[in-house]
Amino acid sequence: MSLDTARMVQMANAIRALSMDAVQAANSGHPGMPMGMADVATVLFSEYLKHDPSAPDWADRDRFVLSAGHGSMLVYSLLHLSGYAHPTMDDIRNFRQLGSPCAGHPENFLLDGVECTTGPLGQGLAMAVGMAIAERKLNADFGSDIVDHKTWVIAGDGCLMEGINHEAIGLAGHLKLGRMNVLWDDNNITIDGSTDLSTSEDIKARYEATGWHVTSCDGHDFDDIRRAMDEAQADDRPSLIACRTVIGKGAPNKQGTSATHGAPLGDEEISAAREVLGWDHKPFEIPEQVLTDWRGTAESGQAEHKGWQDRLANDGRRADFERRMAGDLPEKFSLDNYIQSLMKDPVKVATRKASEMALEKINAMLPDTMGGSADLTGSNNTKAGGIGPFTADDYSGRYIYYGIREFGMAAAMNGMALHGGVIPYGGTFLVFTDYCRAAIRLSALQQTRAIYVMTHDSIGLGEDGPTHQPVEHVQSLRMIPNLLVMRPADAVETAECWDIALRSKDRPAVLALTRQGLPQVRNHPEETDMCSKGAYRLKKAGNAPKVTLIASGSEVHLALACAEELEKQGVGASVVSMVCTQLFDEQDEAYRKDMIPADTLRISIEAGTTFGWERYTGENGLNIGLDRFGASAPAGDLFEKFGFTADAIVPQIINKFKG
Amino acid sequence: MSLDTARMVQMANAIRALSMDAVQAANSGHPGMPMGMADVATVLFSEYLKHDPSAPDWADRDRFVLSAGHGSMLVYSLLHLSGYAHPTMDDIRNFRQLGSPCAGHPENFLLDGVECTTGPLGQGLAMAVGMAIAERKLNADFGSDIVDHKTWVIAGDGCLMEGINHEAIGLAGHLKLGRMNVLWDDNNITIDGSTDLSTSEDIKARYEATGWHVTSCDGHDFDDIRRAMDEAQADDRPSLIACRTVIGKGAPNKQGTSATHGAPLGDEEISAAREVLGWDHKPFEIPEQVLTDWRGTAESGQAEHKGWQDRLANDGRRADFERRMAGDLPEKFSLDNYIQSLMKDPVKVATRKASEMALEKINAMLPDTMGGSADLTGSNNTKAGGIGPFTADDYSGRYIYYGIREFGMAAAMNGMALHGGVIPYGGTFLVFTDYCRAAIRLSALQQTRAIYVMTHDSIGLGEDGPTHQPVEHVQSLRMIPNLLVMRPADAVETAECWDIALRSKDRPAVLALTRQGLPQVRNHPEETDMCSKGAYRLKKAGNAPKVTLIASGSEVHLALACAEELEKQGVGASVVSMVCTQLFDEQDEAYRKDMIPADTLRISIEAGTTFGWERYTGENGLNIGLDRFGASAPAGDLFEKFGFTADAIVPQIINKFKG
Repeated sequence: MSLDTARMVQMANAIRALSMDAVQAANSGHPGMPMGMADVATVLFSEYLKHDPSAPDWADRDRFVLSAGHGSMLVYSLLHLSGYAHPTMDDIRNFRQLGSPCAGHPENFLLDGVECTTGPLGQGLAMAVGMAIAERKLNADFGSDIVDHKTWVIAGDGCLMEGINHEAIGLAGHLKLGRMNVLWDDNNITIDGSTDLSTSEDIKARYEATGWHVTSCDGHDFDDIRRAMDEAQADDRPSLIACRTVIGKGAPNKQGTSATHGAPLGDEEISAAREVLGWDHKPFEIPEQVLTDWRGTAESGQAEHKGWQDRLANDGRRADFERRMAGDLPEKFSLDNYIQSLMKDPVKVATRKASEMALEKINAMLPDTMGGSADLTGSNNTKAGGIGPFTADDYSGRYIYYGIREFGMAAAMNGMALHGGVIPYGGTFLVFTDYCRAAIRLSALQQTRAIYVMTHDSIGLGEDGPTHQPVEHVQSLRMIPNLLVMRPADAVETAECWDIALRSKDRPAVLALTRQGLPQVRNHPEETDMCSKGAYRLKKAGNAPKVTLIASGSEVHLALACAEELEKQGVGASVVSMVCTQLFDEQDEAYRKDMIPADTLRISIEAGTTFGWERYTGENGLNIGLDRFGASAPAGDLFEKFGFTADAIVPQIINKFKG
Repeated sequence: MSLDTARMVQMANAIRALSMDAVQAANSGHPGMPMGMADVATVLFSEYLKHDPSAPDWADRDRFVLSAGHGSMLVYSLLHLSGYAHPTMDDIRNFRQLGSPCAGHPENFLLDGVECTTGPLGQGLAMAVGMAIAERKLNADFGSDIVDHKTWVIAGDGCLMEGINHEAIGLAGHLKLGRMNVLWDDNNITIDGSTDLSTSEDIKARYEATGWHVTSCDGHDFDDIRRAMDEAQADDRPSLIACRTVIGKGAPNKQGTSATHGAPLGDEEISAAREVLGWDHKPFEIPEQVLTDWRGTAESGQAEHKGWQDRLANDGRRADFERRMAGDLPEKFSLDNYIQSLMKDPVKVATRKASEMALEKINAMLPDTMGGSADLTGSNNTKAGGIGPFTADDYSGRYIYYGIREFGMAAAMNGMALHGGVIPYGGTFLVFTDYCRAAIRLSALQQTRAIYVMTHDSIGLGEDGPTHQPVEHVQSLRMIPNLLVMRPADAVETAECWDIALRSKDRPAVLALTRQGLPQVRNHPEETDMCSKGAYRLKKAGNAPKVTLIASGSEVHLALACAEELEKQGVGASVVSMVCTQLFDEQDEAYRKDMIPADTLRISIEAGTTFGWERYTGENGLNIGLDRFGASAPAGDLFEKFGFTADAIVPQIINKFKG
């Protein structure tokens, strides 16, 4: 039921006032978007969005994503006005100040109701695709009584111009995610000025070409907005609603120009806007009637929430649903038996194959997982355990053919993980983390359990050559805070890494896996759970310990071969498998010094950049690596050429002693 | 003039035979695309492409980009057959082997005629946009007698599905680059299988919506191919030609399936293909008539080349044109006067502003530069020196409004640099190197002089918060081989870095620049060209040298403040400005040890990850940095919070001595 228009106008003006005042107080920020989209957002939050401000974590709430994250004051205003516990008005007063949850861009880890962190353009909409996927999957698993919600997005021209938009809407159109609706702030303005400066695209035609339903509305006419939203809800395709708006609407001298985009309006213009808007209240003051109207909009959502709770209480699948939404693994989930079977019957396989073997077990035990690949299914070995495809015709499937859309895949995985109820994993070649690095970073920042299955992790990829051979990637990913980069050495370590990744609820993981076969280096059944400390001693020195070899992944067996040769020459050498530098760095000093004793010659071996390994090998260590681009040739030839053989390495170690 | 169809068929079959045989010999590779596109490519190379195989570096040649780089045997076949000196048949026999220029993917630095390195999907087409931009710019500068060529692209479904395709074609459509024609290998197959698995897009409609001319043809009908190419050439918009092909055409049992995409056909299927194709020649044998026909196609291009040489010889702009195409700077180009003026009148400015000041001078002296920004012109300070916009209406402009297309911008810059005659620079926020990292890597691999103006290079960005604050970026970019990452400390260093970047013909550069103002630390007129060694001693120790402070960019003045305080306490402290680790690492050991003496306590200060700094600070050094994501607050508050003040740092240093 709609309020009368005059009261709706004041509700929208409350957003405008909070936005311009907060940006002014912070002396930085973006007033233009919240002011331009205030009317659309008011209709959405008061009449369409299914949510319960008193229970922001309600599993069956509609998801709202502000993809144009720079307009963060829009969502802060909406959450405050509609009655969420946070942000408080004090939080809003402290917009963009240290300690306020009202950060420059919305951060999912600072505020309930902020479904995802946005700001890096295009990614919000692409994450929303993942949320819509998760919704359909859980609907298929649990039925419409329990899971039946929509995903709403507000996006700007920037979100639509970014390349990821093409990938995201291609995926959404193909999967017919009809419960996803994008409200495009169609204001013809970007930071640099008019959109004419840089684009001539017919955006609506492009969306239609990609399988979307498209409509448009006057973004300042409540009835027209409602008409467009009704139309979008009725269509079974995902919908784009082009909301024609005036950026900075209400600021009489600056509206409609890029001057309102990313800078405070200034006191004078704000005064003028107050007059135009008929808003004669002080900054951060909301009149009683407006607040009452806003708070009243929560009632229908609360009623729906209550009904849902009753349905869930009587549903036999409740426990499983709640476990999945909480992100917990089933109590009986364990890879121990599988790992013990490997101990008994060692295998020589590529770690990408070992990952597939682990996934066979995981996917059979864990209904939560949803796999996929950016068109490298057979190479990434990601389709395992008999899981079927997730398609427009069958949302019960658990495998997504993402197409050649690495960035779109990674962002969708973030959205799925943020939605909850599913654990997404997806693959491509490790070198193409460069295509989706911005989304991997957002996995880490948002603390999502997205699991990246990144295969062909070095020059061991071979013939495809330098464009496809990671050199700097493993090490440079290790620099992203809160990201577990794991490079297992064999099938046992691969299974342990999968176990760690699945149990890390608040952290994404990158599994760096080989194309080429690797011997199994772990054969002692009593040595379990070795990877969880990041690094461990795989082989003790036989002779008096002189050398510590630190290697990861495919270079661990090489380190063992070097150690064997050194021992023959009377030099005691231990081998440490550095599976995950992040986890190792988190161990206490005693453990770290015990693993890598400072009184030994410390040597790193990894088929990638040496930069950074000095952290572990110290000043007088030796760093065996590759500080150039690779080349096209069979893997064996490349390892030989670039010196990754015991014959090439051992003499360097012996020389180091002499030197 | 066309040859008769039967002979054209054999010319195309020569490509098919070489491709399937070379892939078989290598036991890896992609035969499907070259076999499917053999007919289209034969028409293109024999009748349309303006080139002279005896002079692959002819400036006015058409550019040909094989964007679907995995089909590399197509371009190797074409170059060999049409008479380029390389690849030889021996090179082709050694496809994908160590030392052969016929790498798994085409590498511009291995073969003339390979205009750019492709394989990372979508980037070839996007680089072609840059080539087409450079062509129009040089045409505007030098006239149609000297510069008048086309850009041709062969792209596959993958290139079109990648996000960068949206950015690239949006830019090309907006700029009306009508001399660019894309031949799309429309075969409905990707690695995972049918394109139906992952996409439902109407690609032609999408291109039309983006301002492109679209036509289609039967990719196995020479006349229809010619008709479509004629139509494309006649249209003043960029053109997409959808070439309906059968992947692996000629392999009777596997054609039309993903089995031909990325694996050898096998001896049996190759035999069967030989029969179907009527190709009864041994592997790597080309019959005389076919070779004669192919070599004959070079004549018209050679004649055109001769005519062009005559025109150029008589053109008054010849010297300037040749200088620009050679990539040399004018002899009189120098920033020395400008730098000396800074020495006289020091400025306190952000280095992004200092970059603008340098560009004012550079753009005035150097007609080669073409600037731009991904919709952050006012923030990146990239529009300087009075250069006007490059638009569809005026190709003489030197500033490109790239729109919100970081990846498309970076790829276009690569294409412009590869084309030659222009020196591209472009800006965005440093954190968004993540959006274009895959193209920056290709700048480095391809040895192109693309200059990235990356501003807002740390938490000094302030209120926009962690999504916009680089933490790991500077350090992780330093790991890319052949990339100069430069982080200048003030206006003088910024000018020196610009000078280095412009003079590095074979290397891309990233300039990491501040949002916030920085005091000028370089005031000694006699100290010139200090940045070229990567790092230098900015301040000598006063007391007996005990401490070496190594800092970059905005932390250099902080290091100076720390040194001052240390000296007050009687501790001799020198300060090294680490402008560019790559250049520093290239210096001899004596210089490096002199700058950073091992008998001092070595301390790094950089507002980013500490990982990797151990290379310079050794085992017992101190690494001041930020190993977490940032936060949203004014910059000063953040530097304070995260300990980037002399008050926070000096006690740590003193403690280190005690410890």
